[in-house]
Amino acid sequence: MPEYKAPLRDMRFLIDHVFDFHGRYAELGASDASPDMVNAILEEGARFCENVLAPLNRSGDEEGCHFDNGVVTTPTGFKEAFAQYVEGGWHGLAADPVYGGQGLPGSLGLVISEMIASSNTSWGMYPGLTHGAMSAIHAHGTEEQKQTYLSKLTAGQWTGTMCLTEAHCGTDLGIIKTRAAPQADGSYRISGSKIFISAGEHDMSENIVHLVLAKLPDAPAGTKGISLFIVPKFLPDATGEAGERNGVTCGSIEHKMGIKASATCVLNFDDAKGFLIGEPNKGLNCMFTMMNHARLGTGMQGLCLGETSFQGAIRYANDRLQMRSLTGPKAPEKAADPIIVHPDVRRMLLTMKAFNEGNRALTYFTAQLLDMAHLGADDSVRQEAEDLLAFLTPICKAFMTETGLEVTNHGMQVFGGHGFIREWGMEQLVRDCRIAPIYEGTNGIQALDLLGRKVLGSQGKLLRGFTKIVHTFCATNTGHPQLKDYVAQLDGLNRQWGELTTRVGMAAMKNPDEVGAASVDYLMYSGYLILAYLWLRMALVAQAQLDSGSGDADFCRGKLATCEFYFKRLLPRTAAHRAAIEAGSDCLMNLPAELFAL
Amino acid sequence: MPEYKAPLRDMRFLIDHVFDFHGRYAELGASDASPDMVNAILEEGARFCENVLAPLNRSGDEEGCHFDNGVVTTPTGFKEAFAQYVEGGWHGLAADPVYGGQGLPGSLGLVISEMIASSNTSWGMYPGLTHGAMSAIHAHGTEEQKQTYLSKLTAGQWTGTMCLTEAHCGTDLGIIKTRAAPQADGSYRISGSKIFISAGEHDMSENIVHLVLAKLPDAPAGTKGISLFIVPKFLPDATGEAGERNGVTCGSIEHKMGIKASATCVLNFDDAKGFLIGEPNKGLNCMFTMMNHARLGTGMQGLCLGETSFQGAIRYANDRLQMRSLTGPKAPEKAADPIIVHPDVRRMLLTMKAFNEGNRALTYFTAQLLDMAHLGADDSVRQEAEDLLAFLTPICKAFMTETGLEVTNHGMQVFGGHGFIREWGMEQLVRDCRIAPIYEGTNGIQALDLLGRKVLGSQGKLLRGFTKIVHTFCATNTGHPQLKDYVAQLDGLNRQWGELTTRVGMAAMKNPDEVGAASVDYLMYSGYLILAYLWLRMALVAQAQLDSGSGDADFCRGKLATCEFYFKRLLPRTAAHRAAIEAGSDCLMNLPAELFAL
Repeated sequence: MPEYKAPLRDMRFLIDHVFDFHGRYAELGASDASPDMVNAILEEGARFCENVLAPLNRSGDEEGCHFDNGVVTTPTGFKEAFAQYVEGGWHGLAADPVYGGQGLPGSLGLVISEMIASSNTSWGMYPGLTHGAMSAIHAHGTEEQKQTYLSKLTAGQWTGTMCLTEAHCGTDLGIIKTRAAPQADGSYRISGSKIFISAGEHDMSENIVHLVLAKLPDAPAGTKGISLFIVPKFLPDATGEAGERNGVTCGSIEHKMGIKASATCVLNFDDAKGFLIGEPNKGLNCMFTMMNHARLGTGMQGLCLGETSFQGAIRYANDRLQMRSLTGPKAPEKAADPIIVHPDVRRMLLTMKAFNEGNRALTYFTAQLLDMAHLGADDSVRQEAEDLLAFLTPICKAFMTETGLEVTNHGMQVFGGHGFIREWGMEQLVRDCRIAPIYEGTNGIQALDLLGRKVLGSQGKLLRGFTKIVHTFCATNTGHPQLKDYVAQLDGLNRQWGELTTRVGMAAMKNPDEVGAASVDYLMYSGYLILAYLWLRMALVAQAQLDSGSGDADFCRGKLATCEFYFKRLLPRTAAHRAAIEAGSDCLMNLPAELFAL
Repeated sequence: MPEYKAPLRDMRFLIDHVFDFHGRYAELGASDASPDMVNAILEEGARFCENVLAPLNRSGDEEGCHFDNGVVTTPTGFKEAFAQYVEGGWHGLAADPVYGGQGLPGSLGLVISEMIASSNTSWGMYPGLTHGAMSAIHAHGTEEQKQTYLSKLTAGQWTGTMCLTEAHCGTDLGIIKTRAAPQADGSYRISGSKIFISAGEHDMSENIVHLVLAKLPDAPAGTKGISLFIVPKFLPDATGEAGERNGVTCGSIEHKMGIKASATCVLNFDDAKGFLIGEPNKGLNCMFTMMNHARLGTGMQGLCLGETSFQGAIRYANDRLQMRSLTGPKAPEKAADPIIVHPDVRRMLLTMKAFNEGNRALTYFTAQLLDMAHLGADDSVRQEAEDLLAFLTPICKAFMTETGLEVTNHGMQVFGGHGFIREWGMEQLVRDCRIAPIYEGTNGIQALDLLGRKVLGSQGKLLRGFTKIVHTFCATNTGHPQLKDYVAQLDGLNRQWGELTTRVGMAAMKNPDEVGAASVDYLMYSGYLILAYLWLRMALVAQAQLDSGSGDADFCRGKLATCEFYFKRLLPRTAAHRAAIEAGSDCLMNLPAELFAL
């Protein structure tokens, strides 16, 4: 079973050196997040995740959730771990102090979320969904709603959900059927059925606060007629505690490929009492507040499961003895060499390492933008951060889950036949990861969001916000003694990115299908390029530390070698994506649908 | 749940038109396999697989195999289906008539195997392993062994296994610990423990014939000291029926990610009586007879699970209504358009179709070589076929399982969230497929076999045997009115293939690690190229049929559109593989193993 250790060395390298979280915190006035505080939180967080959550990961998968007549029981230990988590103050770490939170920066909350999802992805869904609900209520709720719900959610006494999907619609929320009937007292009666509701019912908290998309009687058709409602499992009583049972029940839980310890519920709303949050018919906008956060969280699942898989694979590759090195025995005293001597095993391990560390850099880069968007001193700083976030969010979600799935599959492959056996724990990581390219908007939808809405929809403005950063970076480092070839490679791809975008944009003006035809390859191309930029930023710091004799020399050599591997063996995949983008839509659309038949 | 239908139209297109099985059968003297006979077998085989095996696929996965004190029970219906299969005469279809088989060509047996593994991969493991054991006994057994064992196996009265792997070794069979002690009566006492033995114990047949690798007392070290033994579960009595229980017992079965209805057993041999098959210390050679067959069979699992996944995805994409086409509503009378109107859904469907039909062509091409190697009129014909088989076998195994896994993942993705739910059946196909890149020699081992042993080991001769075929094909079709651009693309890649090989070969003379560093990318490059050749062969036939007004016009248009898609959107992946090959081994090997640490 892979034993998770928080990769603190890499985390600190990014936090302290590459992205200078401390300087940024000072600049943003987040004075509580002193370097000592950050360090203490990293170490305590690591301890909690390694010792409390990780040991429940495989047992949670084997045991799963149980459903009996509307009652959902989570696996042994999950409830107690949640109590410990709340007790330790982790739940409100980055929440608003006005409602009981600790008010630390969101970026720090994300680093802790990384450790949580790495040690136990299923468990992390319960607090994860709650954080999403908290964001939406914080952004759109009335003061009374915040006092009533947000404080209980922040305290971890109640948990939250997002109720969007129905059996006949997931992507296409415009056609939802759940209805909200206004009542004389200003509340609503909600009726309908929602599916795929993570943490929709469970035994970990006193109450569950559902955020539900539904239609008002007079609502316009489509996505412009959706409203958002708070529907608590138990209605708050006069003292604000969980009181009368509301008309929402769990009809069943799904039997899934993975994240089996996360309860995925069918929720039936039967004249349940609900309260409008935000304006009527603007529910989808309110939900997007949760969804951007959730999309970054989902992207991180790719990183997290990939990290745990890598840790298992690296240990196995050092322990497992099989065959001799092609260049002669490396452990002649043993029956065979450890498999890490074989080039192809190293190819898999380095692919894992390059994606994980690159995806972590992308996560932390994005996390800093979240801080700036929340805490930035003026509108222009905040807007710039928002623009970059809008651009990067679909890439984080789709690229990190796509590559995370590749990483977990490599990890399993390193184990050979043992990888397929449940007790080794490697196949669970693949199964748990497989949902990430699907939920929170499929990766296909993320790609349309990126290319159609963000890039072309802004006439290229959101793209240029990023290509400029890369351009400036390349111009600054063009003569770097050790890294100049990679800088040139990145610079070339960056120019090509703009050209490809223009070409797709022109073609799309004649035929809108060109957007959908190019989108996924465009997103992957973008992801590879962004990771190349981030790998170079890491390599520059590592090289500087080696040159100056500061830092951890072994660690820095590892960074530089992995950067080289990334540029030589992974980044060339952009060529295949470019060709696919340039192939256009005709070769997808010309075949009539009925000719796909057998 | 995807409902499997044998893709008879595509099968017949290949059999009747692209590869002309009938002409080849006549040439090889396989006169029993008349076109009418072939047709009847295809239709009856389809009926059996669709009606008997497919309905047991999901229930088999949910129920799994059960182990109780050495006894293994297969899922409900498996035993009865096996009886029906034997009753129908399917088991001995391509077996030697001397021992009760029907003597039809092996290629026809493979087509039936395709239907079996498509409808129920787990179930197919039981007869599949038996066929492997039959090949080994047929090739290396004494006449007495054939009379005793082969006839029972051919009749389906007994089943067979291959016992290679031990807990400490899978790839590295040179270090096995199972021992064989010679007895005065010429038999041996076998002691040791084997793991991962498919069909090692079950309730489907009267007896199980294990083929076991073990070491004689005086055996040389390594792979040159391995012998092969027949170890029946029940020793044949004087009448040849299953008699006294032998000292081999099932210690447990594995809990796996997939193929859960296939019993994967730990077998303990405790002074079990065994009989040497073939010469002492030549066991690995004997085993290779089984393994080449098994490797093609494993490769086919990628095709088969991909086909079933495609059938599910295509139905869902036509039924599921979600969003409107970017170019305006296509089903305005419905709440939304069927998702097949979206370019990215088509990208996934066409990727599936292109790999499946390409992999099927590769399978049938290889199947014809098997026939020629067995039935070829003279040594030179047989040797030429053997050489091509040696070259293609690792590619079939690794490329088809790698792309099959991609295909099943696309199929699941088309279903969105429903793809992750067990009852829809799409995620099972991913889980069942995930073992295929691992077992029967990991894909990494296949790649070393291809590049190290076959291509460089023959000084390029085995590669040239294939590049010549492609070269001649391109020269013949260079001016083809509709397809000339693709012919030119293939011709260019074919030349590059030779150049890349020479470059790796030169580098490997200085540093043997260059082989391992290039091998997997080299194999994938080769696979993409070979599929391009086969896609063009199909397209030529389809175009000719369209031009002459013969054949099924819709089907031919589908072929041509899929060929175009393959050349424009999948074949360019060779560029990324080429770059990885050219990157060499330094970027994999320079980092000391200990620096992979966290």
